[in-house]
Amino acid sequence: MRLAIHGYGATGHYVHELAPDAVVAVIDKTKTAERVPSYGTLAEMTESVDAIIDFSHPSLLPDLLDYGMRTKTPLVIATTGFSEAELQTIRDASKQIPIFQSYNMSFGIAMMQQLLKTLVPLAGAFDIELLEKHHNQKVDAPSGTAELLLRTIQDLRNVQPVYERESTREKRESNEIGMHSMRGGTIFGEHEVLFAGVDELIEIKHTALSKKVFASGAIKAAEALIQKSAGLYTLETLYTQEDSHVIN
Amino acid sequence: MRLAIHGYGATGHYVHELAPDAVVAVIDKTKTAERVPSYGTLAEMTESVDAIIDFSHPSLLPDLLDYGMRTKTPLVIATTGFSEAELQTIRDASKQIPIFQSYNMSFGIAMMQQLLKTLVPLAGAFDIELLEKHHNQKVDAPSGTAELLLRTIQDLRNVQPVYERESTREKRESNEIGMHSMRGGTIFGEHEVLFAGVDELIEIKHTALSKKVFASGAIKAAEALIQKSAGLYTLETLYTQEDSHVIN
Amino acid sequence: MRLAIHGYGATGHYVHELAPDAVVAVIDKTKTAERVPSYGTLAEMTESVDAIIDFSHPSLLPDLLDYGMRTKTPLVIATTGFSEAELQTIRDASKQIPIFQSYNMSFGIAMMQQLLKTLVPLAGAFDIELLEKHHNQKVDAPSGTAELLLRTIQDLRNVQPVYERESTREKRESNEIGMHSMRGGTIFGEHEVLFAGVDELIEIKHTALSKKVFASGAIKAAEALIQKSAGLYTLETLYTQEDSHVIN
Amino acid sequence: MRLAIHGYGATGHYVHELAPDAVVAVIDKTKTAERVPSYGTLAEMTESVDAIIDFSHPSLLPDLLDYGMRTKTPLVIATTGFSEAELQTIRDASKQIPIFQSYNMSFGIAMMQQLLKTLVPLAGAFDIELLEKHHNQKVDAPSGTAELLLRTIQDLRNVQPVYERESTREKRESNEIGMHSMRGGTIFGEHEVLFAGVDELIEIKHTALSKKVFASGAIKAAEALIQKSAGLYTLETLYTQEDSHVIN
Repeated sequence: MRLAIHGYGATGHYVHELAPDAVVAVIDKTKTAERVPSYGTLAEMTESVDAIIDFSHPSLLPDLLDYGMRTKTPLVIATTGFSEAELQTIRDASKQIPIFQSYNMSFGIAMMQQLLKTLVPLAGAFDIELLEKHHNQKVDAPSGTAELLLRTIQDLRNVQPVYERESTREKRESNEIGMHSMRGGTIFGEHEVLFAGVDELIEIKHTALSKKVFASGAIKAAEALIQKSAGLYTLETLYTQEDSHVIN
Repeated sequence: MRLAIHGYGATGHYVHELAPDAVVAVIDKTKTAERVPSYGTLAEMTESVDAIIDFSHPSLLPDLLDYGMRTKTPLVIATTGFSEAELQTIRDASKQIPIFQSYNMSFGIAMMQQLLKTLVPLAGAFDIELLEKHHNQKVDAPSGTAELLLRTIQDLRNVQPVYERESTREKRESNEIGMHSMRGGTIFGEHEVLFAGVDELIEIKHTALSKKVFASGAIKAAEALIQKSAGLYTLETLYTQEDSHVIN
Repeated sequence: MRLAIHGYGATGHYVHELAPDAVVAVIDKTKTAERVPSYGTLAEMTESVDAIIDFSHPSLLPDLLDYGMRTKTPLVIATTGFSEAELQTIRDASKQIPIFQSYNMSFGIAMMQQLLKTLVPLAGAFDIELLEKHHNQKVDAPSGTAELLLRTIQDLRNVQPVYERESTREKRESNEIGMHSMRGGTIFGEHEVLFAGVDELIEIKHTALSKKVFASGAIKAAEALIQKSAGLYTLETLYTQEDSHVIN
Repeated sequence: MRLAIHGYGATGHYVHELAPDAVVAVIDKTKTAERVPSYGTLAEMTESVDAIIDFSHPSLLPDLLDYGMRTKTPLVIATTGFSEAELQTIRDASKQIPIFQSYNMSFGIAMMQQLLKTLVPLAGAFDIELLEKHHNQKVDAPSGTAELLLRTIQDLRNVQPVYERESTREKRESNEIGMHSMRGGTIFGEHEVLFAGVDELIEIKHTALSKKVFASGAIKAAEALIQKSAGLYTLETLYTQEDSHVIN
């Protein structure tokens, strides 16, 4: 696999560090890479690549999509903070080329989703609770990833989130799912789902230790994406057999 | 140690099972014990004992206190659901005899409190979060034991409980303590305290698996109590060096 | 579903308690059940049933198999301690009727196996470690269930068990799987599998709290078994789509 | 508190980052610090400081001890890999000045030791098991920190380490302590002690996420050390009331 890294910040550096042989070019306006050709823009790149991993900035999205469509290159888009209009241009481009776009690149979270898809249908009558832990500077609660996992569960079973029990003090209903957000220190990110039945428990837990998981997740995604036909893929659809998932 | 069991329900049976040699009499209106003398009331008991373990009913409290004061016998009172007036009669009796009264007999929770007393002063700047898990039939949240642990922490550090973050979505303050109540299946009781600092975590967790922990906690309490002078003891004061803790 | 319970010891009682409407007969030489017809032997039973759940004794196996084959009744065999010759009679009978036989009835362990089948292929390069915890009276280590989970993993990936590192003090190889057996107190049974990759961890954990999980697992197994054609089913094959798994 | 950092590698940088106001000088032959005076050797430093934190190299130990004894400056020595002769020069110097020397600076591990000192005497009959997890490149097993915790436990209770049960398959004895070393991925360091009694468990766990814990531990140690009189302090003695611990 031959990769280009678009955007050479901290996570882009990790992509390079984790896949030194696969990365054949780096594109960044201000920074240059060692041991590999560096360019200020995609248009200047002379190498042909199997996929581009993008950890850049929304303002560079038009460049990225243009290059992808013109050269039929699959795109792994890990940049965050797109507007709805920008997301629409991604959907449009995905009619012509395979694109994987996600606000959480971690492969571990994709695995968590697969585990939930296996377990939720089997654990019919078990009560489900979801706990996530993050550092004390995080403002949103629950985390975006916890909401992603919640939707994965809700696709399979009718459960409604409950965020606290202190004010109601009522018995738990079986169609509830308790959501718990711990905040403390510098915890990078933990997500845990508890299934509680009669005298038995099953727990599934994912722990992320650094931004490196987003880099390795993006490389893994590129590997999967270059096998796919045109379409817009999510963490949930990228690693399944089905070939194309155009969402318009 | 020679013990009498006052109230021979499920937990009273466990006391007998765990300390077959120490138990020399059982008192219960309706049930009789095997291999040991049984009586309908304390007044009928002919054995002299070092302590009485009470898992009976509030209506039998006057009998129990009368017997204790008359014979100078230490009392471990594990019955729950006393009125304020009944609690006052216990306080009054404790001026004459050693009494240990608690709504949670588990020795493990007493150990948790000692661990918190060790850790909270050391872990000055760490963020603290408390998680408890119980079965799906439990109505109150947080559990009484979680509130007990919260008070132990608050005695040592100025922290205010926060029960959810979903409605506020603001950064955590260092004087907060997140309280989380999971409910599911038949979980008997778990209590966990997380201390989160810069790139390190300390977790302390207690798991109770059955009512047997209340029985073994009561036996342990009796052992400690018979060394004490008159006074009313709590989980916090029973296992410390200080001799007498009369609270009037 | 109409069930008969063959063997009315502690776990047989739990089956009755958990499925009071489904159980229409109890068979036990010495004990009788309340609210449902009781018989000393299967031959005396007048009710027709959809399946028989057997928590009895190896000596009653011929009776059980005879009845099952004669009446074409599916059998859930949870009795333990069969000889190789007895196991062969079960295999022979399974050519005529659906039989589920397992030394661990817990449905949670069946779910663990499904989770491993989902995760092991996805987590290609992750290191795998297995931890089990049981009470301090258990003699065998690792537990039979841990060995079952190990085999499930080995069916999917070439890993060799390593039971300690203290004597070798060498770097871990990627085709190893560390096996750890904790023993303490009265722990009923915990099994945990850790998948460790670059800066991320996935943990799957099952906790059993009592024999009740074997009762509920047996009921669940009966539900699945009555949909199947003749064959001998294991935890691994009972809950998959494939219809028949005759193992001769 | 006014600090000098001796040795400005990765961990030295973290000290500066965590205590920007306290650090008034940096000493390193090859690297210079921003926003604070930098010197090639301690002898050149013109600032007077309350303590020196040393994350340098054994070859610089004579310089460090000379400076400390000449100026009566407390020393936090976090450099690793000293020879026995070098350790003897540290012991000699500690007769004149307060010195804290440890191969594990993490304050969290010091807290773990305090928790064990609280719990082991209380949990008399509980079974104890110790689990540590580290990355797959670590050669030694168990970790040095696990051995430190084992010694802390052994100071309080007569327990012998057991490293595996697979080859013996015998019942656990109460004077055993199971030691378990998990290895996988990039885990930085986890240490967990399980106390298992009759139907209850207590678990104490420490997780270190990066080298930053050694930096913050060193700062914390400096704060404690400047209150002490001459002597050689360890993690175990630094945070207790007793004043002086000369070990010769």
